[in-house]
Amino acid sequence: MVILTLTTDFGLSDGYVGAVRGAIVAHASGDIRLLDNTHQIPPQDVLAGACAVLQIARTFPDDTVHLCIVDPGVGSTRAGLVVRAWEQWFVAPDSGILHFILDLPDARVWRLHEPEATATEATTFAGRDWFARAAARLATGSPVDAIADAYTIDECARLNIPQPVFHEHRWVGQVLHTDRYGNIISTLPPPPAEARDTARVFVGEYLFGPIRAAYSEVGHNKPVATIGSLDTVEAALNGAAAARRFGVRRGQTFEILFPEPVAPPQWPPWQRLTGKSRPA
Amino acid sequence: MVILTLTTDFGLSDGYVGAVRGAIVAHASGDIRLLDNTHQIPPQDVLAGACAVLQIARTFPDDTVHLCIVDPGVGSTRAGLVVRAWEQWFVAPDSGILHFILDLPDARVWRLHEPEATATEATTFAGRDWFARAAARLATGSPVDAIADAYTIDECARLNIPQPVFHEHRWVGQVLHTDRYGNIISTLPPPPAEARDTARVFVGEYLFGPIRAAYSEVGHNKPVATIGSLDTVEAALNGAAAARRFGVRRGQTFEILFPEPVAPPQWPPWQRLTGKSRPA
Amino acid sequence: MVILTLTTDFGLSDGYVGAVRGAIVAHASGDIRLLDNTHQIPPQDVLAGACAVLQIARTFPDDTVHLCIVDPGVGSTRAGLVVRAWEQWFVAPDSGILHFILDLPDARVWRLHEPEATATEATTFAGRDWFARAAARLATGSPVDAIADAYTIDECARLNIPQPVFHEHRWVGQVLHTDRYGNIISTLPPPPAEARDTARVFVGEYLFGPIRAAYSEVGHNKPVATIGSLDTVEAALNGAAAARRFGVRRGQTFEILFPEPVAPPQWPPWQRLTGKSRPA
Repeated sequence: MVILTLTTDFGLSDGYVGAVRGAIVAHASGDIRLLDNTHQIPPQDVLAGACAVLQIARTFPDDTVHLCIVDPGVGSTRAGLVVRAWEQWFVAPDSGILHFILDLPDARVWRLHEPEATATEATTFAGRDWFARAAARLATGSPVDAIADAYTIDECARLNIPQPVFHEHRWVGQVLHTDRYGNIISTLPPPPAEARDTARVFVGEYLFGPIRAAYSEVGHNKPVATIGSLDTVEAALNGAAAARRFGVRRGQTFEILFPEPVAPPQWPPWQRLTGKSRPA
Repeated sequence: MVILTLTTDFGLSDGYVGAVRGAIVAHASGDIRLLDNTHQIPPQDVLAGACAVLQIARTFPDDTVHLCIVDPGVGSTRAGLVVRAWEQWFVAPDSGILHFILDLPDARVWRLHEPEATATEATTFAGRDWFARAAARLATGSPVDAIADAYTIDECARLNIPQPVFHEHRWVGQVLHTDRYGNIISTLPPPPAEARDTARVFVGEYLFGPIRAAYSEVGHNKPVATIGSLDTVEAALNGAAAARRFGVRRGQTFEILFPEPVAPPQWPPWQRLTGKSRPA
Repeated sequence: MVILTLTTDFGLSDGYVGAVRGAIVAHASGDIRLLDNTHQIPPQDVLAGACAVLQIARTFPDDTVHLCIVDPGVGSTRAGLVVRAWEQWFVAPDSGILHFILDLPDARVWRLHEPEATATEATTFAGRDWFARAAARLATGSPVDAIADAYTIDECARLNIPQPVFHEHRWVGQVLHTDRYGNIISTLPPPPAEARDTARVFVGEYLFGPIRAAYSEVGHNKPVATIGSLDTVEAALNGAAAARRFGVRRGQTFEILFPEPVAPPQWPPWQRLTGKSRPA
């Protein structure tokens, strides 16, 4: 059965997610399987949404349709997008939420047809009245050309995520996301295996030590660095919330120092992957 | 496949929602598709639950079964209800959570049979031990008469939601709900299209301007009024949380002023709709 | 269709739950039905996870697979477990999250094979890279011996939950959990029906009165004791949050006093149940 995932900033306290689910099943022309990613993206936080979309695109099967809605420009003239990448589909407003997906080497993009008229007078719920319908149709057999026109990646909204700087003895990236556990997720790829023991990870003035295989290699509450779920370097406290403890926020500098010179890595680390070779 | 939705105040931190899902699949006599509306209705907040139920009843297909549990009287003698409206089923305690559904012109009501004996000694979890079983049976083929008896709408618990007052130059309603984004949702229907530009929306002493098509027609953080997802007038800040900023709470006065006289609208705005004509 | 439930501390704000769902459907060899228990277990709170697992194991049908992940030792050498009890399967790290399940008289345990190599360099997401795959295989036809080896319950990690003391006139247990409503859930089984009216329930110095059938037998905001959803005695405020009001925390003493002598009950109350006889 075709799978449709949902990533939104609708929250879980109102009826908005339910209304979108209803619109999807009402407009699907066959069975469709709805699986949530998250609805707790902070309101209008497009970058957090982009990270959550990247996270799940790594694991879902081919031809999954990902409906991704963080849409500060709802009701304006911003476009609706359909993207094909990693053998999956993505339907979203052109808000930047597909930033990482548009970076993938096999990404192709279309512009959604404008929404059809509905019986509602509401103008603020494009998730329900436009994107849900388009995603349901795409998932249940509509060819992409029936719901969208040709478009180019250059026309799409992008986020400003600085490329890290890779010196021989020092990689300088930034904090991409802090998660539920208070773990600090960076933009830096894993250094070569032989350089991890002697590497030293810093977030601002705080030292998190070398790159280890498990949080539990250090004592409870002690700083530790690992390779996290996006295949980037993370800083954490074993069993505690590092981001809160140290007041770390997205965009702060995140560095790795190396005593021996290290060759520059490919960046972003997920970009080399295509289709079936995605990692997990 | 038949769809069963869940709207509760059980929260997402305990095993309560999971236990109800288990009871549903254990007592269904065939495949059933569970889709969440929300479980984050504030504890015992029947009006918030009623708004969330109304929100999703607009979009789900015919014959969906909506299980709706906000139940301050759990364990007491309050009745259990089955309601048929908009070609859908609703199963709920008689707490007021179906207030808006009972207002629909095609609404019919039954009283659920008392719960059968179970192996548990618990008396506080009617959602699991009574309503889940009834909803599962209704969704998988039990005729309504096998699980419930005739009842009348006049016998049902109702909420106290004042009808707005519609003067020629001034509509006076109230705040029905404030949502995750801090948007302020009123009880006032959309004014005629030609009156929206010159209308002025007030919540208490705060002016939100005319009624616009999109938040983004004003600058970031600026006040704006729109037609929201329930087909009522909303007040918001573009990209920020108006309810928190202005300390707005449910039940406060929400007004629209018109320089030219405007005829009184139908109220509530969703009441005119029946069955297939529901809006979205 | 086979059912797979999810109980985790991943939270709902990141893409972690979505990534696990993707890994499950990608590694299942047939259709599988994913139903959430909860993802809001507080980070690393194994006991809260164990309570949520016990809660849902009471209601799900035979052969459900419960994937349960609260895993403070992720990445270390702690084992992965498969448990069969109450005619259901449980897949989890050996962290104590299956504490109550391992207590069941019909419990059998296996040790999961070590994870296979994956394309990811991440070492911190065993939920996605190990347990999800194992659970998906078990749910879609792999025999348990193909994914796990013999193991014994004595080798498994257990929580320290003191057995209550049952005097003739006084039962002394503790607070096991406080829930979303602020209800205070104890380790004490229900006293015999004839002793409930004259029983007096205390949490610390606070008296919650006799054991009643419904919160609404007392006035709004008044203390009340009932038999809760785990078949243990609970203390609450009708319509308010007792745990917050009285500052009650897990592990505090929870007592019942009896004017007439009462025989000691079986404990834990759910242990007597096997397979089909589970209560709800």
